[in-house]
Amino acid sequence: MAVYTEIDDEQLDALLAGYDIGRAIACKGIADGVENSNFMLQTDVGIYILTLYEKRVDPADLPWFLGLLTHLSEQGFPCPVPIRRRDGSVLAEAADRPAAIVSFLHGRWPKKQRAYHAQGLGDALAGLHLAGADYPGERANNLSIDGWRPLLEQCGPASDTVMDGLYDALSQELDVLEANWPTDLPRGVIHADLFPDNVFFMDRDLSGVIDFYFACNDVLIYDLAICLNAWCFETDGAFNITNARQMLQAYRARRPLDRSEFDALPILARGAALRFLLTRLYDWLNHPEGALVTPKDPLEYWRKLKFLRAVSSATAFGLDF
Amino acid sequence: MAVYTEIDDEQLDALLAGYDIGRAIACKGIADGVENSNFMLQTDVGIYILTLYEKRVDPADLPWFLGLLTHLSEQGFPCPVPIRRRDGSVLAEAADRPAAIVSFLHGRWPKKQRAYHAQGLGDALAGLHLAGADYPGERANNLSIDGWRPLLEQCGPASDTVMDGLYDALSQELDVLEANWPTDLPRGVIHADLFPDNVFFMDRDLSGVIDFYFACNDVLIYDLAICLNAWCFETDGAFNITNARQMLQAYRARRPLDRSEFDALPILARGAALRFLLTRLYDWLNHPEGALVTPKDPLEYWRKLKFLRAVSSATAFGLDF
Repeated sequence: MAVYTEIDDEQLDALLAGYDIGRAIACKGIADGVENSNFMLQTDVGIYILTLYEKRVDPADLPWFLGLLTHLSEQGFPCPVPIRRRDGSVLAEAADRPAAIVSFLHGRWPKKQRAYHAQGLGDALAGLHLAGADYPGERANNLSIDGWRPLLEQCGPASDTVMDGLYDALSQELDVLEANWPTDLPRGVIHADLFPDNVFFMDRDLSGVIDFYFACNDVLIYDLAICLNAWCFETDGAFNITNARQMLQAYRARRPLDRSEFDALPILARGAALRFLLTRLYDWLNHPEGALVTPKDPLEYWRKLKFLRAVSSATAFGLDF
Repeated sequence: MAVYTEIDDEQLDALLAGYDIGRAIACKGIADGVENSNFMLQTDVGIYILTLYEKRVDPADLPWFLGLLTHLSEQGFPCPVPIRRRDGSVLAEAADRPAAIVSFLHGRWPKKQRAYHAQGLGDALAGLHLAGADYPGERANNLSIDGWRPLLEQCGPASDTVMDGLYDALSQELDVLEANWPTDLPRGVIHADLFPDNVFFMDRDLSGVIDFYFACNDVLIYDLAICLNAWCFETDGAFNITNARQMLQAYRARRPLDRSEFDALPILARGAALRFLLTRLYDWLNHPEGALVTPKDPLEYWRKLKFLRAVSSATAFGLDF
């Protein structure tokens, strides 16, 4: 459920005065999303998404994010297109927050992830990595392996209130990851948060990818590892090897994996599981009383991690090199 | 913030198969509203609102509510129009809940209530009362004076945790209201929940009224009393007599008040204040830990009630009979 900043009529009219998209005839807060406030904005001219950036997004990163969306959409990637203001800029301000208006993408996100969704996602992810290859500028991944130990220390012994022995177990897992983390894999722009609610489909076809506010430069197949975790487990925790195979096949049909990438998938998937486990754990332990956003269950990712620790080769994901 | 039931693709497609409004190309949960789950539904044909009725609405009342919307819209009143299914019905089912699709109304609700909003509202409220006059069937107001004592008893001594002495003060207020509540005023269909977030404006003109799920048969000017409380106080608690005068003048220009109605406005406003104070108090004392909906402050209505207790005549609302 979204953080939700109100925008009043005067503020909205003042914002739209800087654009060439007509006047607002409706503006409704969207319930999806937890990082920013999003509105479905209908004007004389069409439908748009208005985003007010809340405190979790660093304003200094916004030009990089919005530039990336413009770059990717120019390459034909189906992401929101930032709308230019009359002065040519794409970043605005409304309700005392940084703001942007982007194109509205058709489609709906898949509540149940089927094999054809995983196939479409694998193909689009490779397309994203190819389209992002020549995007200039660098944004570090501040939630990559270097950030995990400090995050675990911030959670501290309170972690054990979520599950007995969790702190020590995560600390040992981190030892293994730090000792074995690959350093020499192809890098580029990754989405880094490609969960099902950020991917839209029309019927069986992928129609859009949204929410690039964790995008950064990192190992490309770390993105694929995040998607393996987010799209290839059943709600009961079982691994869905059909989804995994479809996703990996579609990805490498468009962007071939080299041997070192293929072999690194299991350890990267463990790292990706730990990353979401740690941020969820932190949010679980630190969410304010009465907050509007219900924290997500960290132990969902503990169960995924347990599966991944038993995986010795990427062939467990459904295909050979 | 809305209660939020997910509707998956199969459920939405199955629902739309019963209608003649094309197929869904987007469906996004709306953050406004606390009683039901509302979605902005875009199809090939247009934009609609899909509502899934949550447990606070009695399914047995839905035919009356939806029939009222059809009736009012046929009289030209700007409310959502229920969309008929292929079989002629307007009530459907989706995601294991009763569901309806209604037309989408343009406009935005006024975050700050200005005099022209109050004027537009007074005019529309009279129009609603006139248009509802020949709507058949009866729905009792289960949150009218007979329901207040049981509600106060359910809150009980815990009320004093919100404000010292609140339980006794409300009990005494209820004694006064029960002894003086008017019984012989013109009755008809009222909206009964006409807060600013249920009224849309385009520029200065009222463009729509939504959320009829408290509508019932009751004293007509009880509706006006609810609006006085909801639209004519500043956020600092000060009474805005300009708004009140505009609202009352516009109302009686379209539906003249008789003497008994004019004289009863102060006591009805006190009753309306107590009604919202009690339901907010109940929700405050009974909201589950971690609920998505933040309860509204009951004491906002205690402050309004204190003002209204000092009012001896409706002339305090800005105009003479």
